[in-house]
This record gives sequence, structure tokens and C-alpha cells, in this order.
Amino acid sequence: MAKHFQNEIDALKKKILHLTALVEQNLESAVRAVDERDIKLAVKVIATDDAIDQAEVEIEEECLKTLALYQPVATDLRFIIAVLKINSDIERIGDLAVNIAQRAKTLAESKNKNVPLDLSEMSRLTLSMVKKSTDSLVKLDSQLARQVGGMDDRVDEMHRDAYRTVESEIIKDPQSVEYYINLLGVSRYLERIADHATNIAEDVVYLVEGQIVRHQHSV
Amino acid sequence: MAKHFQNEIDALKKKILHLTALVEQNLESAVRAVDERDIKLAVKVIATDDAIDQAEVEIEEECLKTLALYQPVATDLRFIIAVLKINSDIERIGDLAVNIAQRAKTLAESKNKNVPLDLSEMSRLTLSMVKKSTDSLVKLDSQLARQVGGMDDRVDEMHRDAYRTVESEIIKDPQSVEYYINLLGVSRYLERIADHATNIAEDVVYLVEGQIVRHQHSV
Repeated sequence: MAKHFQNEIDALKKKILHLTALVEQNLESAVRAVDERDIKLAVKVIATDDAIDQAEVEIEEECLKTLALYQPVATDLRFIIAVLKINSDIERIGDLAVNIAQRAKTLAESKNKNVPLDLSEMSRLTLSMVKKSTDSLVKLDSQLARQVGGMDDRVDEMHRDAYRTVESEIIKDPQSVEYYINLLGVSRYLERIADHATNIAEDVVYLVEGQIVRHQHSV
Repeated sequence: MAKHFQNEIDALKKKILHLTALVEQNLESAVRAVDERDIKLAVKVIATDDAIDQAEVEIEEECLKTLALYQPVATDLRFIIAVLKINSDIERIGDLAVNIAQRAKTLAESKNKNVPLDLSEMSRLTLSMVKKSTDSLVKLDSQLARQVGGMDDRVDEMHRDAYRTVESEIIKDPQSVEYYINLLGVSRYLERIADHATNIAEDVVYLVEGQIVRHQHSV
């Protein structure tokens, strides 16, 4: 039975990695759709979300089946519960990629082409946080997970900068307020994605070290 | 053992209700702090969040202990997993109440007193969603849970209205862009709280009816 349970854990890890890959790809495409004003790509991101939702439901079902069948305790139990929670965070990151794609569609229709924010650097950092946090789960590597908190501080700072930049652009050109608020929305969605990655990393630290770093505002 | 397990479930329900009451009270205070420009009340909301975080951690520990000790299956297992997920949503609603309190502090320092948004109606609806969704868990009442989805549509609509109102105020008075973007932030936080209440309600429908209503965009 120990071996069967281990197989189950390995299968769950694979499924989580698959889900993360889908979400990462969708997030990359969503940000590219903003950059390149690519409405078709934005529509594709929105359509792909169904597969992500489906994968999330399957992982949750798999976790419940594993709990019922193997009745794990201690670390094994904590692992399955961590997967359940992290699964839900990854799916919400997927939803936020859809939100970015929706903004991409609106922005593409605008005549304004001024992008005073470094969205590609912000999304590079955010994607790296998502990758690191999920990798840290699969490898049970709390050191890797702890790197994510520091990156979150940087993303928060970039979002605050974006906020100030957008404010001064609106003062210069009030008629473009809708355009700039949409642009700021992209930055805010990236910042929320970074928060979800931080939640994942905190759950991994707790799983591996038994130490609750949640609610301490830095991993 | 069945009796002991039932006692455990009852204790968990009580703890979730206690956590929800704390969060509801903090949310009410946060919105009142915005309305009444009450910096002291905003500071109190922010300070109370520690107790909410603590209660969330305790409920999660209790769920893990219950799983390890009673090894529930079928409906009982699903109930504990639902509590775990809902616990996390309630705590994040608490975080959003803190975000509203932070905006309340900033808004209180502004000379601008124009509040063109119906934030009190929006927060009344949102609070009612939080109450209904948690009650539906405790009573295992999926009919009650299903009411929450319709209310979410209304909150989304109010947030879209708030967005348009703020845009036109900024065009009229571009120097107040910071003030209005902060005000819009309160509306956005309320809308996100409503989303969490909807997540809770969807988990309850799934728990009671075995039917996944998540990702169908209306409960």
C-alpha cells in the first residue's frame, strides 16, 4: 500500500505541474496580447480557461479519492491538503490571466498607444514566482519557496510605481482616463497573481518545515 | 466514535461561525470608516486582523486533526475539505476588509468629500452574501447557497457603475485622480469579497448536491 500511495502522490505532482504549465502559458499569452494588441490571442486565452477549470476539478477529485482510499496521516495528509489548497490558488491565477486577456481586448481597441509601465518585467517576475512556488511543492524545497516572498515585495513596489505613473498620465490627459485605468488593471492583476504565488510558497514552507509563515507578510 | 466525530463537526461549525462573525464585524467597521472618515476605526480594523489570522490557522489545524483522527470518508470527508477551503476564503475576506480600512485612512486625509458611489448599499449586499454563504455551510442548505450567485451579479453591476462614475468624475476634476482611484478601490475590494462569498456558496452546493457549479459563472 505504501507503494501505491507513493504512486498516487507522484501522479498528483504530475497533474499539478501540468495544470501549472497550462496556467503559465495562458498568463504569458495574456501579457503578450496586451503588449502586441492581439485580440485573437486574448480570445484564445479566454477559451483555454475551460481546460484549466476542468484540470482543477480533476485534481480536487483525485485528492479526495486519495484521502478516502489511503487515509494518510501526518506528513502525507498535510501533503494532500497542501495540494488541495495550492490547486485552488493555481486555478485562480488562471482566472486572473483571463482578466488580463479581457483588458487586452479593451486596450487593443483604444487609439492610445502609450504604455508608460514596464509590464513585461513585472510579468517576467510574476511568472517566475508561479514557477518557483509550484516547483517548491513538487520538490518539497522550502528554501526555494522562501525566495518567493522577496520577489513579491518587488512586484508590490512595481505596482505602486505603476499606480503613480498612471495618476500623472491621467492628470496630463484626463480624456484617456478609461485607457489608463485599464492599463493599471493589468498591473493590479499581475500583483494579485504574485500574491497567489506567495500563498502557494507559504503553504509549501508550512508543509516542509511545519512552520506557519502565513500572515507574517514575508516568507 | 460516530458521536465523537459529530461533536467535532459541531465544534468546527461553531468555530467557522465565530471566524465569520469577526470578519463581518471588521468589514462593517471598515466600510463605516470610509463613510465617516474615521481613521481610528480604520486602525482598529487593521489591528483586529491578527485575531482573524489566528482563528483561521486554528480551524485548519482542527480540520487536519479531525482527518487524521477519524479518517472520515464520503460526505464527512467532503464536509471537512469544504470547511478547509471556506476557512481560507473567509480569511481572505478579512484581508480585503483590511485593504478597505487602509483606503479609509488615505481617503480620510483627503480634502475632497465627494462620494458619488453608493458604497453602503454595495457593502450591505456584500455582507449579506458573506452571511448567507456561511449560514448555508452550517445548515448544509444548498437552496440558500444558490441565492448568493444572483446577488454576485448585482454587486458586479454596481462595481461597473462605480467604475464609469469615477471615470467621469476624473474627467471633470483630473487633479483629484488619486482620491477617486482610492474610492474606486473600495468598490473593487467589495466586489472581490462578493467573489469569495460566491466561491464559498459554490463549495456548499457541491458539498450538499454533489454538483460542481464552480466555473459556470452563476450558482
